[in-house]
Amino acid sequence: MRIQVILRVIGILVMVFSLSLIPPIIVSLIYQDDTLGAFASALAINLLSGFLIWFPVRNQRADLKIRDGFVVTVLFWFVLGLSGSVPFLISTDPVLTFTDALFESISALTTTGATIITHIDGLPPSILFYRQQLQWLGGMGIIVLAVAIMPMLGIGGMQLYRAETPGPVKDSKLTPRIAETAKALWYIYASLTTVCAVGYWLAGMTLFDAICHSFSTVAIGGFSTHDASIGYYNSVAIEVVCSLFMFISAINFGLHFYAWRNQSVLHYFKDPEARFFIFILFCTVTLTTLGLTLTATYDWDLAFRYAVFESISIATTAGFGTSDFSAWPHFLPFLLIVTSFAGGCASSTGGGMKVMRILLILKQGVREIQRLVHPSAVIPIKVGGKAIPERVVSAVWGFFSAYLIVYVILMIGLMATGIDQVTAWSAVAATLNNLGPGLGDVSANFAGINDPAKWMLCFSMLLGRLEVFTLLVLFTPMFWQR
Amino acid sequence: MRIQVILRVIGILVMVFSLSLIPPIIVSLIYQDDTLGAFASALAINLLSGFLIWFPVRNQRADLKIRDGFVVTVLFWFVLGLSGSVPFLISTDPVLTFTDALFESISALTTTGATIITHIDGLPPSILFYRQQLQWLGGMGIIVLAVAIMPMLGIGGMQLYRAETPGPVKDSKLTPRIAETAKALWYIYASLTTVCAVGYWLAGMTLFDAICHSFSTVAIGGFSTHDASIGYYNSVAIEVVCSLFMFISAINFGLHFYAWRNQSVLHYFKDPEARFFIFILFCTVTLTTLGLTLTATYDWDLAFRYAVFESISIATTAGFGTSDFSAWPHFLPFLLIVTSFAGGCASSTGGGMKVMRILLILKQGVREIQRLVHPSAVIPIKVGGKAIPERVVSAVWGFFSAYLIVYVILMIGLMATGIDQVTAWSAVAATLNNLGPGLGDVSANFAGINDPAKWMLCFSMLLGRLEVFTLLVLFTPMFWQR
Ligand SMILES: [K+]
Ligand SMILES: [K+]
Repeated sequence: MRIQVILRVIGILVMVFSLSLIPPIIVSLIYQDDTLGAFASALAINLLSGFLIWFPVRNQRADLKIRDGFVVTVLFWFVLGLSGSVPFLISTDPVLTFTDALFESISALTTTGATIITHIDGLPPSILFYRQQLQWLGGMGIIVLAVAIMPMLGIGGMQLYRAETPGPVKDSKLTPRIAETAKALWYIYASLTTVCAVGYWLAGMTLFDAICHSFSTVAIGGFSTHDASIGYYNSVAIEVVCSLFMFISAINFGLHFYAWRNQSVLHYFKDPEARFFIFILFCTVTLTTLGLTLTATYDWDLAFRYAVFESISIATTAGFGTSDFSAWPHFLPFLLIVTSFAGGCASSTGGGMKVMRILLILKQGVREIQRLVHPSAVIPIKVGGKAIPERVVSAVWGFFSAYLIVYVILMIGLMATGIDQVTAWSAVAATLNNLGPGLGDVSANFAGINDPAKWMLCFSMLLGRLEVFTLLVLFTPMFWQR
Repeated sequence: MRIQVILRVIGILVMVFSLSLIPPIIVSLIYQDDTLGAFASALAINLLSGFLIWFPVRNQRADLKIRDGFVVTVLFWFVLGLSGSVPFLISTDPVLTFTDALFESISALTTTGATIITHIDGLPPSILFYRQQLQWLGGMGIIVLAVAIMPMLGIGGMQLYRAETPGPVKDSKLTPRIAETAKALWYIYASLTTVCAVGYWLAGMTLFDAICHSFSTVAIGGFSTHDASIGYYNSVAIEVVCSLFMFISAINFGLHFYAWRNQSVLHYFKDPEARFFIFILFCTVTLTTLGLTLTATYDWDLAFRYAVFESISIATTAGFGTSDFSAWPHFLPFLLIVTSFAGGCASSTGGGMKVMRILLILKQGVREIQRLVHPSAVIPIKVGGKAIPERVVSAVWGFFSAYLIVYVILMIGLMATGIDQVTAWSAVAATLNNLGPGLGDVSANFAGINDPAKWMLCFSMLLGRLEVFTLLVLFTPMFWQR
């Protein structure tokens, strides 16, 4: 372990992060919302903290190895979670405890979008902007993590995507590849955000709202500047823009990268994961529309409109809302939240287990049936015509079961603090899948639950974002040997 | 497919089953409970039906092949479910609809032990005896299924147990092996039942209750002759006998078979699955005792007593009760029902996914972490010092995911009929794990739920008992080709 090199990276990270407080300061100056001091202090605190971490180890330069990658990745999210909470702690509106400030910050950075704030419409514009920007930065981090780092670490079968990332593959050095990949992804991510913001603006949002919502849409974060979320606008045009960009952002950014380099579009339609994702969405929209119509919750046209938006919003794990879906007949919110376990495609800003893994699991299920009927046949699992290595398949299984075991343990933990089963079930789904909204006591926001539960949910959000194993591996003695 | 040979087997099965109505007839004669006619009619109906199935194909003799095994196994449970429901339909106490009679019969035969009857204490003795005997016969069927048939069919990794079953292994002919194995298992099963009955009787039950409860204990069925189940007696001695025999019956009958043939006991303590099962029970008892004490639900001595009994009862999927555990602080019933997913050991009368599969899944999880730390190492999964073939491991994964996918689909189905989430969650667990008791609206019995839900739960009980794949495979076009 190259602790000092890692500390140097983290120090730089915190200093760079402190610069992200400049845009909220500008917003505060424009709107004169009395939050200038909070952001200026937060900037100073973060800059100084970063400097103090960095200065003693500033000359420690060495390439990081793959094993260091786990530590850097986990520290990245923990430290930024802490840094990001500073403005919430200092600001006088909202007034948040340390637990709440950290919860809000981690929820933003992991693009979960669960909030403990109960009066979003009344917040100062700079705080609103900051929350949205935090999601956007988190989304950027996730893309780099998902496209460049996870495949190298080999988390849950993601080594499958190694060949698709740019740069030399055989190399175990992290730094050069991340830098190269990150730059390309940055262009794609920023372009998508810009087009999304223009789309929202043309669809009728104010410029401020358009920019803010473009941040949380492309990040699949789900934070909004209004308590009623996208439902505030009651505009089909805005819902269409939102749905479109949630969908695009939930597609593998490796495909966007390919499109950007090769000026191609056809490859999207050939991608088995994207096709399966569309299939999932199609089924969910159909079932939800039928469910809402047959139970006479809405007429079919309104049912279809809500079904399309909520299905895409929940299945991509964005978590925006146009209707209080927790008040629908119970099997519909349950069904929708189940789709969030699939979540977005691999290497996207979406959460959940990722569509590719669910696809592999279903293919394996079919293979097991084939094996029962033809016990002696050798049947490889193929995706898009290519056989998947058994090692990747077993890593996906490992991921799937670890995910579910963690899920059940977190649920029991929450229920032990006195939370009811439906709330606990949905709260873990909302956080582990980085979805955002839940049911029961957390259907509007997470303010009402107890502090130990909030800490568990913070951990759950990080576990989900770090694909469980990146974080779990640090708790094993094996990792720290040698 | 040798349809006619299969029909011949089924015809004989129904005729033999009709003989099982003789003991209830004797009970009815002893207690003069006016149910004689119902059982006599049911005997006649079943004998005649069996004869009509058998007679046209009586000369069709051929050895069945492995693929036929799936059809015979599934038909076995469907047909006996139907045959077993006849006395419930004819009897005037209880008065049951066809749906309810079938539910009760399938619940008994699959040793689920969920009941739709609301006044068990008031039932005629012959009906009480019949319900218990039906569970006992089901348990016998399960043992043969689990020890002799499942390993040959290779369901969910159970080919692992092929070597442990007696007789020639390479042979694909079903009949001779089943006969040989079934005979040996019959002795063991009957002996256990006898000792259990004597135990109950010495502990203070009436002879009638002792025999009835020995049937449902060794079968891990959970039916009782009292609404209050084992809690009716409020006797530590009876709880000890019950716990002991639930535990013994949840151990792999292959081990009992080995003990019977080799006069050995030591091998029990060396078996990794049995050891892990004891570990699960130890953890559950500890957590439950702590939970009940810390929440001041009971004093520690009563907490310990209830914790031991309910943990063993739920973890083995027996489902007997001494306390209304659904009224405990919510996380405890949740935790207990989660243990029922592990269920008993493979090749026992227990339900759930089986302890061995959970053990393999956890070992695979650990291996994934090892692989992350040492990406180039080749690490086999070992149980009891022996490496498990990758094929078995992947079959276990396939089983695990199919189980959970079926679980979620059934839950959505139940909730679509208007059932709340907690009831639906526990009802599927109660049936798919062949556990019996649930929470919410099904904590006392299953009488209150709607008919479509009861049909889904019947299907769920059969799916659980047939280890999902045996039943699912029949729905694939692949199975019926050629
Ligand atoms: K989200
Ligand atoms: K049972």
